[in-house]
Amino acid sequence: MPQPTPRRTCASLIAFADALLQAAGMPPDKAAAVADILVDGDLMGHTTHGLQLLPSYLREVETQSMQVAGGPEVISESPATLTWDGRRLPGPWLVLRAMEAATAKAKRCGTGTVVIRKSHHIACLASYHRRATDQGLLMILASSDANSASVAPFGGLEPVFTPNPISVGIPTPGLPIVTDISTSATTNGLTNRLHQDGGKLPAAWVIDGHGQASDDPAVLFKEPKGTILPLGGLDSGHKGYGLALMVEALTGGLAGFGRADPKQGWGATVFLQLIDPGAFAGSDAFLRQMGEVARQCHAARPADPRRPVRLPGEKGLQLAQRQRQEGVTLHPGLLEALAPWAEKLKVALP
Amino acid sequence: MPQPTPRRTCASLIAFADALLQAAGMPPDKAAAVADILVDGDLMGHTTHGLQLLPSYLREVETQSMQVAGGPEVISESPATLTWDGRRLPGPWLVLRAMEAATAKAKRCGTGTVVIRKSHHIACLASYHRRATDQGLLMILASSDANSASVAPFGGLEPVFTPNPISVGIPTPGLPIVTDISTSATTNGLTNRLHQDGGKLPAAWVIDGHGQASDDPAVLFKEPKGTILPLGGLDSGHKGYGLALMVEALTGGLAGFGRADPKQGWGATVFLQLIDPGAFAGSDAFLRQMGEVARQCHAARPADPRRPVRLPGEKGLQLAQRQRQEGVTLHPGLLEALAPWAEKLKVALP
Repeated sequence: MPQPTPRRTCASLIAFADALLQAAGMPPDKAAAVADILVDGDLMGHTTHGLQLLPSYLREVETQSMQVAGGPEVISESPATLTWDGRRLPGPWLVLRAMEAATAKAKRCGTGTVVIRKSHHIACLASYHRRATDQGLLMILASSDANSASVAPFGGLEPVFTPNPISVGIPTPGLPIVTDISTSATTNGLTNRLHQDGGKLPAAWVIDGHGQASDDPAVLFKEPKGTILPLGGLDSGHKGYGLALMVEALTGGLAGFGRADPKQGWGATVFLQLIDPGAFAGSDAFLRQMGEVARQCHAARPADPRRPVRLPGEKGLQLAQRQRQEGVTLHPGLLEALAPWAEKLKVALP
Repeated sequence: MPQPTPRRTCASLIAFADALLQAAGMPPDKAAAVADILVDGDLMGHTTHGLQLLPSYLREVETQSMQVAGGPEVISESPATLTWDGRRLPGPWLVLRAMEAATAKAKRCGTGTVVIRKSHHIACLASYHRRATDQGLLMILASSDANSASVAPFGGLEPVFTPNPISVGIPTPGLPIVTDISTSATTNGLTNRLHQDGGKLPAAWVIDGHGQASDDPAVLFKEPKGTILPLGGLDSGHKGYGLALMVEALTGGLAGFGRADPKQGWGATVFLQLIDPGAFAGSDAFLRQMGEVARQCHAARPADPRRPVRLPGEKGLQLAQRQRQEGVTLHPGLLEALAPWAEKLKVALP
């Protein structure tokens, strides 16, 4: 097992990722967007979706599976909506640009929705919300990737879906609420990592190729291959299945590109919607309600007296604040995985 | 136990409900909307959210907790959004009218969103979608009721949320996909009915007042009172909790009315959004993708060879089709519960 790495400053990590991406050929604005969003993932403790993705991203740039030049093509636009072909450009850069477009639409129309086909991977969905909630806007962000499938429909043994995450950022008078959940019982990132490390899942979140529930991610890699269960597992998996289909419709359906088309390689189809509470009952009224809901959640007597009830995202946002000041603890093995790229691209390790 | 009732024709049930509601003082357009939507619930087999609600609705009309005169007040309107105060008018009538407004907005702006505060109860969410999907539109419908709370935040023992359902209707080249899920592990309707009948839940979907998971709905009625678990239960309940908060933000937050206000009695805060795939990559492209996703789900090898994989809503829509032709099987005891109202309001039983 690799040793835990010492802390690094947030700025040094962003500069390092930025330098690597630029050295690989990515223009400065795109490299900055990708570096920011990846390090945001690590700051919040989502280490499977932070800098751990960078070696894969660099490999994709090298093989030109990730494009670096130019911008998205507009497929269609209406007052409150916009559809892009992302031309396999870096996902974090596309999403940040899409958020700007959606924000402008939300301010005019109340809501702004952008759908992107053929985006490259978009990293950690929770990384994006703060930029919306700081402006008082609510954001819904969902994605799927028709290039792969690991989650079976409820009652089935063959995979149709990716974990199809849906993530929401909600302004409150305090820290925003940031949910980021896969509509499956667990993710590819976690099952891959635990399988490599020989670990087990916290509960029976996968089924083997015969339909037997298991906590062993190894069943995903043995023939007949197992699949990840939909959220809700064997007794309520119809709910995760329904949510997976909702995400599929909002992404692949609206984008008009997905599981009916030839595979294009690792990527993402993205749905994002910005909602301006000011266009409904007003921003103050929104914050008053969400402040009360947050208060009631925090005030609820905890099942375990040592673990007070938290809001989704609270732990991550507090960790990010602390790590911004005190430095970032990286997942063991991360810098070892990046070292060959640092050497190859002649960028000093942080 | 009451005996199963014989079948009734769909038309006779609608006419019966309509006559009862009109006899109770509801104007014809509102009575027709409520009767239609309630019977749609029974047609699809959602018997806790069909005509079983009618005695409660009639009682609410009688006590004037449900209003019958006039229309909603506009709180705000923007090109793609509309916010109503529903003035405690009948929920099904408000939702059907809101769908018309949202459809017009979606056709102009790509999406149309309507939020309703102070609606009365809106019955079965799955009942509404066919009217949108038949026009090729996708609909998202969610609701909460700040008047009550039965679901605790994840890790907590005190209830903050209602089951906060989210329901989606998705056009496909075949039957539409209609998901209707509570973001909690189970619903008030099911736990109440099972508690009355002395039954048990299919899995440990509730916790007692000490945080112990249970399949016995009785723990919700004993002191210290238990709560319904969020979707995902003890190992993944943070996901249901996140979804409950999303619904709370889209309903009470955007409506600016909810848990921060004095209780107004049984009702609903409603979020509905119509999305026109024609404004994105086009309706044909949407149907092509969703047709392929539906095909892959149906084609997936089933875990139990006797139970082929179905799409959400498929069983209900097929049952509705059959019951429209062959008559509707009512939940045992339903007509007995309606008989006193029929007598009082001088309406013949169907």
